[in-house]
Amino acid sequence: MSSLTFYFAPGTCAQAVRIALEEAQAPYRLVRVDFASGQQRSPDYLSVNPKGRVPALVTEQGTLTETLALLTYVAQCFPAAQLAPTDAFGLARMQEFNSYLASTVHIAHAHRPRAARWADEPEAQAAMQRKVPANMTECFQLIEHHYLGDQPWVLGEQYSVADGYLFTMAGWLKSDGVDMAQFPKVAAHHARMAQRPAVQRALA
Amino acid sequence: MSSLTFYFAPGTCAQAVRIALEEAQAPYRLVRVDFASGQQRSPDYLSVNPKGRVPALVTEQGTLTETLALLTYVAQCFPAAQLAPTDAFGLARMQEFNSYLASTVHIAHAHRPRAARWADEPEAQAAMQRKVPANMTECFQLIEHHYLGDQPWVLGEQYSVADGYLFTMAGWLKSDGVDMAQFPKVAAHHARMAQRPAVQRALA
Repeated sequence: MSSLTFYFAPGTCAQAVRIALEEAQAPYRLVRVDFASGQQRSPDYLSVNPKGRVPALVTEQGTLTETLALLTYVAQCFPAAQLAPTDAFGLARMQEFNSYLASTVHIAHAHRPRAARWADEPEAQAAMQRKVPANMTECFQLIEHHYLGDQPWVLGEQYSVADGYLFTMAGWLKSDGVDMAQFPKVAAHHARMAQRPAVQRALA
Repeated sequence: MSSLTFYFAPGTCAQAVRIALEEAQAPYRLVRVDFASGQQRSPDYLSVNPKGRVPALVTEQGTLTETLALLTYVAQCFPAAQLAPTDAFGLARMQEFNSYLASTVHIAHAHRPRAARWADEPEAQAAMQRKVPANMTECFQLIEHHYLGDQPWVLGEQYSVADGYLFTMAGWLKSDGVDMAQFPKVAAHHARMAQRPAVQRALA
């Protein structure tokens, strides 16, 4: 792990990976990809990640993409930080939660800023955007009632990379027109996360 | 691993997990969830998986959901079958691919049969459905040119649970109006998979 280069853009899901890197106290070089100027579609960046998205992590063994994969990778590369369970069932529980965020919650959100991915007509895009608050509310109801318990973190007493991922997604609620206060456990988790030094470094 | 109950519906992404269970020669009880009658929304099934989706795997330690999590779990519970890399980078490569299938390819496809998830208006749903062939084509171009090489499997020489997942997603191309023949490596992979005894058992 002597060389890690992390491609990042503020406000994206890459923030979850940045939190994991900070929690792991991993040495890494941070490269900001400027979405405002469309740098993610530049030939230079497409040679790093042909998907034209962040995050991407360049390691000595090759380049990795996809938030969920990077979260588990960072946890496993820096085991001293204890950022993921090491048994198969515990790891699967964490991955189940992360996969729900990646393939349901992130997608529910993306229909507001990225509606053009799924329909060309402006009216159809507006229809998708109108449904985002209801879909995000449904997602966070499930997180509140099914996933979060009375313990401080997503997996219970053990803090993990899943917590930074939830923190990142919950941070999108306001812009999606959803009041986090209706989910007391999510809101308490968010406040707890914001106090962690690694999270503060990742947001700096 | 003395007790596994697998909730499944034909034609869904749960097929990827069923292939993994068959490849692992795992002992499991198969429970079919009848989507035609809406059984996935019944109180009985919602008590198994409150998301109202398949797959779900009931283990002695608890219930797990999300295809990506189940694939890695099955691989790790049955290590003799060698269905996943055991080093952090290799596992991350596999999870990167699986996460791309779960959060981009499956979503691109879902806008045809499940457009109502993301907009209420029939016109908007029709607009999403019109864009599915283009989006699925773009996804499989990336798989063809970026992920698949000259070796037989997604990860190269090593067969893994990612292969059953790709096989399942590629099986949706025809119904999405996309000709698999334009992706020669994907088509060859699909034919190779169809010859595996475990795949044939999973489809039976």
